[in-house]
Amino acid sequence: MGDAKNTTATALQGALVDLIDLSLVAKQLHWNVIGTNFRSVHLQLDEVVTLARTYTDTIAERLSALGVNADGRSATVSKNTKLTQPESGWIESGKVVATMTDILGGISARMRERMDLTEKSDQATQDIIISVIQDIEKQHWMFQAMS
Amino acid sequence: MGDAKNTTATALQGALVDLIDLSLVAKQLHWNVIGTNFRSVHLQLDEVVTLARTYTDTIAERLSALGVNADGRSATVSKNTKLTQPESGWIESGKVVATMTDILGGISARMRERMDLTEKSDQATQDIIISVIQDIEKQHWMFQAMS
Amino acid sequence: MGDAKNTTATALQGALVDLIDLSLVAKQLHWNVIGTNFRSVHLQLDEVVTLARTYTDTIAERLSALGVNADGRSATVSKNTKLTQPESGWIESGKVVATMTDILGGISARMRERMDLTEKSDQATQDIIISVIQDIEKQHWMFQAMS
Amino acid sequence: MGDAKNTTATALQGALVDLIDLSLVAKQLHWNVIGTNFRSVHLQLDEVVTLARTYTDTIAERLSALGVNADGRSATVSKNTKLTQPESGWIESGKVVATMTDILGGISARMRERMDLTEKSDQATQDIIISVIQDIEKQHWMFQAMS
Amino acid sequence: MGDAKNTTATALQGALVDLIDLSLVAKQLHWNVIGTNFRSVHLQLDEVVTLARTYTDTIAERLSALGVNADGRSATVSKNTKLTQPESGWIESGKVVATMTDILGGISARMRERMDLTEKSDQATQDIIISVIQDIEKQHWMFQAMS
Amino acid sequence: MGDAKNTTATALQGALVDLIDLSLVAKQLHWNVIGTNFRSVHLQLDEVVTLARTYTDTIAERLSALGVNADGRSATVSKNTKLTQPESGWIESGKVVATMTDILGGISARMRERMDLTEKSDQATQDIIISVIQDIEKQHWMFQAMS
Amino acid sequence: MGDAKNTTATALQGALVDLIDLSLVAKQLHWNVIGTNFRSVHLQLDEVVTLARTYTDTIAERLSALGVNADGRSATVSKNTKLTQPESGWIESGKVVATMTDILGGISARMRERMDLTEKSDQATQDIIISVIQDIEKQHWMFQAMS
Amino acid sequence: MGDAKNTTATALQGALVDLIDLSLVAKQLHWNVIGTNFRSVHLQLDEVVTLARTYTDTIAERLSALGVNADGRSATVSKNTKLTQPESGWIESGKVVATMTDILGGISARMRERMDLTEKSDQATQDIIISVIQDIEKQHWMFQAMS
Amino acid sequence: MGDAKNTTATALQGALVDLIDLSLVAKQLHWNVIGTNFRSVHLQLDEVVTLARTYTDTIAERLSALGVNADGRSATVSKNTKLTQPESGWIESGKVVATMTDILGGISARMRERMDLTEKSDQATQDIIISVIQDIEKQHWMFQAMS
Amino acid sequence: MGDAKNTTATALQGALVDLIDLSLVAKQLHWNVIGTNFRSVHLQLDEVVTLARTYTDTIAERLSALGVNADGRSATVSKNTKLTQPESGWIESGKVVATMTDILGGISARMRERMDLTEKSDQATQDIIISVIQDIEKQHWMFQAMS
Amino acid sequence: MGDAKNTTATALQGALVDLIDLSLVAKQLHWNVIGTNFRSVHLQLDEVVTLARTYTDTIAERLSALGVNADGRSATVSKNTKLTQPESGWIESGKVVATMTDILGGISARMRERMDLTEKSDQATQDIIISVIQDIEKQHWMFQAMS
Amino acid sequence: MGDAKNTTATALQGALVDLIDLSLVAKQLHWNVIGTNFRSVHLQLDEVVTLARTYTDTIAERLSALGVNADGRSATVSKNTKLTQPESGWIESGKVVATMTDILGGISARMRERMDLTEKSDQATQDIIISVIQDIEKQHWMFQAMS
Repeated sequence: MGDAKNTTATALQGALVDLIDLSLVAKQLHWNVIGTNFRSVHLQLDEVVTLARTYTDTIAERLSALGVNADGRSATVSKNTKLTQPESGWIESGKVVATMTDILGGISARMRERMDLTEKSDQATQDIIISVIQDIEKQHWMFQAMS
Repeated sequence: MGDAKNTTATALQGALVDLIDLSLVAKQLHWNVIGTNFRSVHLQLDEVVTLARTYTDTIAERLSALGVNADGRSATVSKNTKLTQPESGWIESGKVVATMTDILGGISARMRERMDLTEKSDQATQDIIISVIQDIEKQHWMFQAMS
Repeated sequence: MGDAKNTTATALQGALVDLIDLSLVAKQLHWNVIGTNFRSVHLQLDEVVTLARTYTDTIAERLSALGVNADGRSATVSKNTKLTQPESGWIESGKVVATMTDILGGISARMRERMDLTEKSDQATQDIIISVIQDIEKQHWMFQAMS
Repeated sequence: MGDAKNTTATALQGALVDLIDLSLVAKQLHWNVIGTNFRSVHLQLDEVVTLARTYTDTIAERLSALGVNADGRSATVSKNTKLTQPESGWIESGKVVATMTDILGGISARMRERMDLTEKSDQATQDIIISVIQDIEKQHWMFQAMS
Repeated sequence: MGDAKNTTATALQGALVDLIDLSLVAKQLHWNVIGTNFRSVHLQLDEVVTLARTYTDTIAERLSALGVNADGRSATVSKNTKLTQPESGWIESGKVVATMTDILGGISARMRERMDLTEKSDQATQDIIISVIQDIEKQHWMFQAMS
Repeated sequence: MGDAKNTTATALQGALVDLIDLSLVAKQLHWNVIGTNFRSVHLQLDEVVTLARTYTDTIAERLSALGVNADGRSATVSKNTKLTQPESGWIESGKVVATMTDILGGISARMRERMDLTEKSDQATQDIIISVIQDIEKQHWMFQAMS
Repeated sequence: MGDAKNTTATALQGALVDLIDLSLVAKQLHWNVIGTNFRSVHLQLDEVVTLARTYTDTIAERLSALGVNADGRSATVSKNTKLTQPESGWIESGKVVATMTDILGGISARMRERMDLTEKSDQATQDIIISVIQDIEKQHWMFQAMS
Repeated sequence: MGDAKNTTATALQGALVDLIDLSLVAKQLHWNVIGTNFRSVHLQLDEVVTLARTYTDTIAERLSALGVNADGRSATVSKNTKLTQPESGWIESGKVVATMTDILGGISARMRERMDLTEKSDQATQDIIISVIQDIEKQHWMFQAMS
Repeated sequence: MGDAKNTTATALQGALVDLIDLSLVAKQLHWNVIGTNFRSVHLQLDEVVTLARTYTDTIAERLSALGVNADGRSATVSKNTKLTQPESGWIESGKVVATMTDILGGISARMRERMDLTEKSDQATQDIIISVIQDIEKQHWMFQAMS
Repeated sequence: MGDAKNTTATALQGALVDLIDLSLVAKQLHWNVIGTNFRSVHLQLDEVVTLARTYTDTIAERLSALGVNADGRSATVSKNTKLTQPESGWIESGKVVATMTDILGGISARMRERMDLTEKSDQATQDIIISVIQDIEKQHWMFQAMS
Repeated sequence: MGDAKNTTATALQGALVDLIDLSLVAKQLHWNVIGTNFRSVHLQLDEVVTLARTYTDTIAERLSALGVNADGRSATVSKNTKLTQPESGWIESGKVVATMTDILGGISARMRERMDLTEKSDQATQDIIISVIQDIEKQHWMFQAMS
Repeated sequence: MGDAKNTTATALQGALVDLIDLSLVAKQLHWNVIGTNFRSVHLQLDEVVTLARTYTDTIAERLSALGVNADGRSATVSKNTKLTQPESGWIESGKVVATMTDILGGISARMRERMDLTEKSDQATQDIIISVIQDIEKQHWMFQAMS
């Protein structure tokens, strides 16, 4: 693999792990959130799940399009994820909102690094990363506004 | 937790791990399958993903309805999954079909144990497990027929 | 084939013949009914056809899922059907309603036997039979109410 | 009426009253809830109304299918309902949530008794009761989580 | 409450009871009608139910918009309803049609009184009552035409 | 019946039997096909079922429009069908494709005879037969292309 | 205008008047029908209206496509219509059914003459007339079956 | 018929004739308009047809709801219409626009008289007339703006 | 312009400015609201935007239909608006709710004046104003209930 | 290939070239039309594109159904097209309308020849050609009316 | 605020004012356009409104996502807009087209400056600006083509 | 034309020819593919046609937006296309897959050159080219995976 392709592939695989675990964490919180704000947070989290699943597929199929294999197995995700893991059990909605704000902020930062790296290596990939950033940062705002 | 509730919760949590990992494995194969039969297997796998995601939510929310916390975090899935993990890289469609037949057969067997256990402990839960079995065994037949 | 599987398969194959012939008989009456009540009976019969076709597929694919071959060929249906066959030619709507009430009553009775037999042999099959009973008995009431 | 049919009919008629009054109480609260949490509770209550109305029809038509008459008149509901009636006037959302949690818990308990009673008397009826339980207990969790 | 508001509120609360009980009575007849005309009457009644439920919500939320509390509890409906209550048990379609014609005629008359009273007190309320009259009188014609 | 009407009726009744048995045979193969090409053939067969069911209704109601009684009962179909019947049990997809190519070719030939016969006897009927030919021959090409 | 064009135009203009007046007559009966069969006949008539309006447009635009002016003004329709006009006032459903059977029979006969005339003059026009015949004769059967 | 009812019925029957003939005239122009502005006028006219047909039904069924018979037969329309009739043959779009502006202006004026008359006689009828006025005057503006 | 027309035009132009600025203010708050209640208020505000935009168009096109020019330019709105303007920057959800309750109350009062003025001048316009009042007062209740 | 099949194939291949080039020419004009009538012509042309693409597929698959290979490659189309090619660059809408009228007239004439030729050789093909003629001649009228 | 963020925020706030005022101006012209070309221009303007409203929301929520407050109040728009304001009263369609061409050209130019400025400061924002440019320039072409 | 505009126009016109011919070639193969893999390849090709047609329109209208004329006439496409042309006649699915892989690879390479060229000349155009690349390379992977 040439350098450019290597850079692109690393960025995409990193994004893939971020997004798969985002979908798992958001579902975990969707099921375990409690508090008077339950309904709003429960529903907002499902919007994140939908967003994460859609981009997961786009990102993985971009890897395939470049001839590189996506790795979205649970062991890979579990080992490589950079997302703060929620504790088990019921979680107060305020804490859920804080956790999500933090997680989305982290993903945004890592995606911005990938945006910078792929600008040179593959603009068609960068354009996908940019879309991810737009939606992740919009959700980041929404959770932050809820806190 | 009483015994009945404990039995039910254990069955549901086991089913949850089975179904989350099924969605991850089926997506992994969806992205990495190759061979002349690519399109058929690629699309059939996405039907499994849809099915797995739908029941994942039903199962986890049944746990919540019983007052028990679902655990669908990546580390939990990765550590507890009983699904044969596919190797990384491209996989020939014949091998994908064999893998899926095997995995679906295993899930069917475990779900049948859960069906038996929950008959006594909670029939409302058992009824959900039975629906899972109907759909998992239908997919099992379809992959087996493709081999 | 083990006993349980044999029992299940026999129940499903019997249900398959009942449902395919129900779809044929209901269509036959749909085309040949006459009388001032024509429109109501004509349309009610098509609801039965839709119901019969949907369960036909579910039942046959349940057989496949169990590794048993469904047999829905015209000769098989014709030879094994237990449904009272309507005479040829125009049929007064009152007679159509009486015929359908009788046929649906018969199917309900046979499905209830299958429900009892499959409770032990395969609960995932029994659950399908139960859904059939719910819809068949609802139609039975509607035709009976029309008489 | 035979004993089995009698048991089934009693269970269904009881479920009918529970569900009609649930739809009326949930609408009453939908119109009179106040508090910062107004929108979430207002909308969640309408999901309960939809659910209650759908099962009301299923339950009443199951009675008809069994040849027994459903009784869903206002006097019957008013006289026989076991639901705690909300006071008149505006009600704070916290109190609404507590009331609904209590009401849904009560319905769940009575439906579980009906599930046990109909297991012997009519499994096709029991299967409907089980679906009601699944949805009622899901709503019970959601209101409880909101408190 | 000022006189105008009092007049409006009384008219709306009366309309609310009429419409809730209309939805209950129409469902009662929907389930218990028999006769060759079963299907037509059964379906026509469900159009009345839909209409009654839609206006129930509009009327109750108009009360809320005016700062008055709607009261749609079963005891209130049962005590205050002016609708002729159908007897229990199966009812011949001819009698159902006559009952509905009578009930719809009564509601039309009471709604016309409310239309006159609210013309002065609140035209925004009167406009809703007028829509109710249009639809109730259309249904009245249809049931009358069926007799 | 005049000669023209007799000719038309015979053509339509023959087409009816062809199309009903086509729907039954295609479903039989849909359930029992195996082989790596399973998914493609399984789905293609359901397109044939849909097509056959749609034209079955059109043809039978054309008979009614002409004042002649359609006969679509299982005994009639079973006795008069000219379709090669598939054996029972699993069938390799290659054999399914060959069977369907053969069956569709036969139906096309018989429909062309009916097209010629009805040109004189009833052009409104001939126009329906022509539509059947267009769709049957399109399916014939698709199965032939798959072999 | 050449002879062929003249023949075609005359056929189309005749069909236009038939279909516009059919839509007016069917609506007239739709509003004025009474009797226990009210709902069925009321709804069946609206299917005729829809059919008549659709073909009216097709026929008139076929005239335009041939460079001939359609004339669908009320005076033209009123003067040239061959449809038996219903009396004013309420009409018993049995009489409505008889009237419609008669009217549809007459249109069918005139359309068949037009089908024969246009076969030579313009097959693209004839094909439209044939579609009209198929739908008119289907409605003729349905009304006849209701009598 | 009392005076009020008589007034209302006369207003509605007049509106009915206006609207049926509007639908016929607008279709006539829809088919025969020519000029560079063809497409805009052709499509705008069909919006008028849709509007006219919808209100025709509402108006006629309001008559039925009042127990008065609607008369929408072609002879009645032709004899009583007050709409300027378009000449036969192709009509330049400018002339079509002028004709429609004139016709819609006339209908608006007559509907306003009916609005005034029905205010006393039946407000539920007046409310329908007001809706007609809103839509007719909107179309009047649009055609006027096009000239 | 006659007096009546002048009155109507003034009422409509005033309503137009109210509604355009309502859509701008509600969007401003939709973007800048913060607090735990963020999601509910954010979504409720968009319902107001949709409502305001829909009536803006209806009102402006009513002006056109009367031959008067609507003026919805930003300078006109900015200069003539009577809505309390929100400050710039983030606004706590409680304050947003209070602001909206106040604004909607003010619009309701002005619309009621317009309703009274247009009763004489143009009932077709008054009917539109009445619909606006119904929806504005419903939103007013909902925001008030949230406080 | 027999004579009949040869005749049919030649007719279909000719129609295919006509229709593919019609879709290309109509798109070319859709992109390059200018003039005050821009929007109407731009949109009308896209209706032609949709129509041309739909029949292109039907025609080509009819060739396949007959066992003959369709040839829709750009070189084939370019070499064999009989359509007047538009010049490059912006084209005034009047000229576009004239060009399209001319092109559609030409296609109509050639399709009518194919209709005559296929009447003997294959009526199932002729029926498709007739549908093409109906739609092409309708578009021809519309463009002609615009000039 | 850092320089990059400041640059981005200024660009977005400028785009917001452009787009809000575009939606107001396009609606103003939508209501006041006259001339034979009325319908085309009236409808084309509504496409601009839809486009402007959609991007307004995207742009404002991008500001929120960056932690900057959007300002879309009428006074802000009125004071800062750079769009040529249309005069009040009816405007001939030719003048409307010229005005829109001019306005869209101006927005395009300002958006291109924002595209250049945000390339360095925030590519995720630049990507949104680029989408705006694509749609604004497409509308610019369409209005220009109409002149 | 300035240099930048010239560069952009050349890139877009080249892309236009690539995409129009892609739609023609993919349809050609869609009609002429044979082999056991027929259905998968037949359907996959239609996804390419849809994609090609959609981008063809976007690309051509981007040219118009820039004031440059798109040229999509068959002679232009035929003369300038760089796509390997498929031979006439039936083509085995393996060969079709290889052909498509090759063609899509070529288009991807040329589009990447256009992406580089337009980065300086017009980023709004480059953004469209990047979307084309994403979809073309996804299809390239899918065909390659099938081989």
